[in-house]
Amino acid sequence: MDPDSGAAPNLQARKKLAAMHRIQAAALDLFEAHGFDQVAIEAVAAAADASPRTVYRYFGTKEMLVIWDEADEHPSSPLTPYFGDGDPIGALRAIFAAGFAAMGEDDLDLIRRRLALVYTTPAIEAAFILHSYEKSRAIAAAVASARGDRSETEIFVHAFVGATIGAMRHWCLSGFDGPPFPHLDQALRLLEHGFAHGTP
Amino acid sequence: MDPDSGAAPNLQARKKLAAMHRIQAAALDLFEAHGFDQVAIEAVAAAADASPRTVYRYFGTKEMLVIWDEADEHPSSPLTPYFGDGDPIGALRAIFAAGFAAMGEDDLDLIRRRLALVYTTPAIEAAFILHSYEKSRAIAAAVASARGDRSETEIFVHAFVGATIGAMRHWCLSGFDGPPFPHLDQALRLLEHGFAHGTP
Repeated sequence: MDPDSGAAPNLQARKKLAAMHRIQAAALDLFEAHGFDQVAIEAVAAAADASPRTVYRYFGTKEMLVIWDEADEHPSSPLTPYFGDGDPIGALRAIFAAGFAAMGEDDLDLIRRRLALVYTTPAIEAAFILHSYEKSRAIAAAVASARGDRSETEIFVHAFVGATIGAMRHWCLSGFDGPPFPHLDQALRLLEHGFAHGTP
Repeated sequence: MDPDSGAAPNLQARKKLAAMHRIQAAALDLFEAHGFDQVAIEAVAAAADASPRTVYRYFGTKEMLVIWDEADEHPSSPLTPYFGDGDPIGALRAIFAAGFAAMGEDDLDLIRRRLALVYTTPAIEAAFILHSYEKSRAIAAAVASARGDRSETEIFVHAFVGATIGAMRHWCLSGFDGPPFPHLDQALRLLEHGFAHGTP
């Protein structure tokens, strides 16, 4: 039995999140210094003062040490309710704008470091694409059960995830030109108004 | 040295394509009858009267026996030039309409069988998603070098591939309701006019 099981759930969840952030930070340092393929999960665990078992239990795979985002702790995706909104693109734009506005330079630096590893390491990139696709499927299933038009939902959710992957990929390939929100917002504007007439 | 190396390139390519279609047909029969995980590449080779070495050389992985499409024989993707068109969505709609119109019931049946295996077998689905993403990257790189706006190209190509995956997924999940073109065309219309106002 877990010795922490008597603690309040919120405290347990906060402790787990803090440990995951500490382990991810140690992993990024090691991957950047020695290369992703050269670093074993055991070395990450040692650097973060955690057991390898804990690292495996929290992250599952070495790739997830880079891909993992606090939002992944939600069942399905925290974006799901916004897709069910009457104006999903407007709702997604508002939540992204608020999310990025609340970030400090440290948070943005973490995102840039993670994306740089994703797009320079084929194994992480493949895991990132599959992770994003699994989220699309989960969001589409959750939204379709609440709405009538399942086909439009499937198309929209997968197009949205594809467009954001393209936008983040371009941000990374452009050497992280400026803040990330304008890149995502370009994707949202194109999805909103269509690709027929180019960027509005 | 390849004993066929003196033959005309077109004849060689045609012989290879015919062998790949024969091997894929044998693979689909076996996967449907016994389950994808239960069938070894050696069994596919024996059923298609080919050597395992030839099957590996032509397809690379067991998953590609399902995913492979004749269009994969083109370097990058045969769709690439249409993305560089002044009206890429119109050009893609015309080429899809012509492609499906030229297909017989046997061709459509093959597509349905392949998609049914993709969406019921997690290993094939993962390989299919990664294969589609690799095509997106190749198309985006080819188109971006010929156009100015690299960010819009990245967003459009990835959104297009996501939208078509969503449309084909819905076609499969709906029990292959009707012919495939109207499903793809719905994805193209939404990309063209935007998702702000629902399906036009």
